[in-house]
Amino acid sequence: MKTGAQHTDDPAAQPLRSDAERNRGRIIAAGRTVFGRDGLNASMASVAREASVGIATILRHFPAKEELVAAVFLDRMDAYADAVVVALDDPDPWHGFTGYIEAACAMQAADNGFADVLTMNFPTAKALEQRRNEAYEAMVQLISRAKATGRLREDFDPSDLVLLHMANLGVVNACGDAAPDAWRRVVALMIQSFEAPSRGTLPASPEHDALYKAMRRSSPAGATAPAPDKSS
Amino acid sequence: MKTGAQHTDDPAAQPLRSDAERNRGRIIAAGRTVFGRDGLNASMASVAREASVGIATILRHFPAKEELVAAVFLDRMDAYADAVVVALDDPDPWHGFTGYIEAACAMQAADNGFADVLTMNFPTAKALEQRRNEAYEAMVQLISRAKATGRLREDFDPSDLVLLHMANLGVVNACGDAAPDAWRRVVALMIQSFEAPSRGTLPASPEHDALYKAMRRSSPAGATAPAPDKSS
Repeated sequence: MKTGAQHTDDPAAQPLRSDAERNRGRIIAAGRTVFGRDGLNASMASVAREASVGIATILRHFPAKEELVAAVFLDRMDAYADAVVVALDDPDPWHGFTGYIEAACAMQAADNGFADVLTMNFPTAKALEQRRNEAYEAMVQLISRAKATGRLREDFDPSDLVLLHMANLGVVNACGDAAPDAWRRVVALMIQSFEAPSRGTLPASPEHDALYKAMRRSSPAGATAPAPDKSS
Repeated sequence: MKTGAQHTDDPAAQPLRSDAERNRGRIIAAGRTVFGRDGLNASMASVAREASVGIATILRHFPAKEELVAAVFLDRMDAYADAVVVALDDPDPWHGFTGYIEAACAMQAADNGFADVLTMNFPTAKALEQRRNEAYEAMVQLISRAKATGRLREDFDPSDLVLLHMANLGVVNACGDAAPDAWRRVVALMIQSFEAPSRGTLPASPEHDALYKAMRRSSPAGATAPAPDKSS
């Protein structure tokens, strides 16, 4: 985060660059409002209206909607990744595991847009995906530790957390403001179902590639032309 | 279901009435295709295109989208209500209960439109709501019987089935064709979480009125003007 004026060799470039930075910040703030309220299906045009900039300005900063979504939710993804690190520090691995699930699902419930982000992927949004990958690696450790205590069922798979987020999203979306806490009961039931000893075998987890494809198909780029593979 | 020509006092009215019936059938068939493919958000205009009739013809038969949705899914709701009756006949109440859940969630997974119908309500669609109420009454019995055997946790509430359908819808929607069976694992976990003895207390169920409001808000009429209260 840069603040204050910066010197440059070309004084004429200075105000332009500041304008561009201001616009970028404005677009991200508008995206947070619009996606948070309407979910990721909201159009670039609604974000432009909210930011009081033209659609061309948005496209100059974010050529694909996926890039805007990634920029808007990067800080939430940070908070999400941080929650896994906090959970890993818990001296009680099962408590850390369940506390993490509750925290992550609460983040979904609190933000209509981020709820979607957690069940999608964004191959071209390097920074966002890097944070997600870090969170994933930490989560795999969290799961191993919880299994080692014997409290987490042995057949628990990391992909079960993705499925849990999809299920939670269903409850959050269907209930909205009418029953804003209903998801807590479903998540509590799911956590109890994860507890060892298991009460029976489960249908196999979806293949990694299939789940990846599922997360991809519902992402903003999944419904439009793929964004070019470049850093945003 | 009437077949064949019918006599009437006014011979001129006959062809008109047949045309109207033919159109009605065509619109319902088109609705089944379009809602099944695109979900209930599909517009009346898409149904009109699929049926090759004008939008005015659709509106003559179904003044509100809710009425069309109800007509399209009445037979699915019949099948759903029948599944509860079958479950009640099972000599093993727990087996009947879990078998019913699997059957009902499979119906959601098989039909994009019906998946939504199960988590909505349609106050003006009397026939559909009557079938749903019958199914609900039978389900309350099914739950009591399963509790009486000691296999179903005591704090299980009928509204948990609505929440389960919302969660299942989230998984079905997010996975789509990419991981079409992933919902089975989530539903199996949920069923295990319902099994007694419970592994801890749960957050309270949402109030009946709140859940009703949630089901109402996502229904087709929730997003448009309410349809007049009349039989369809």
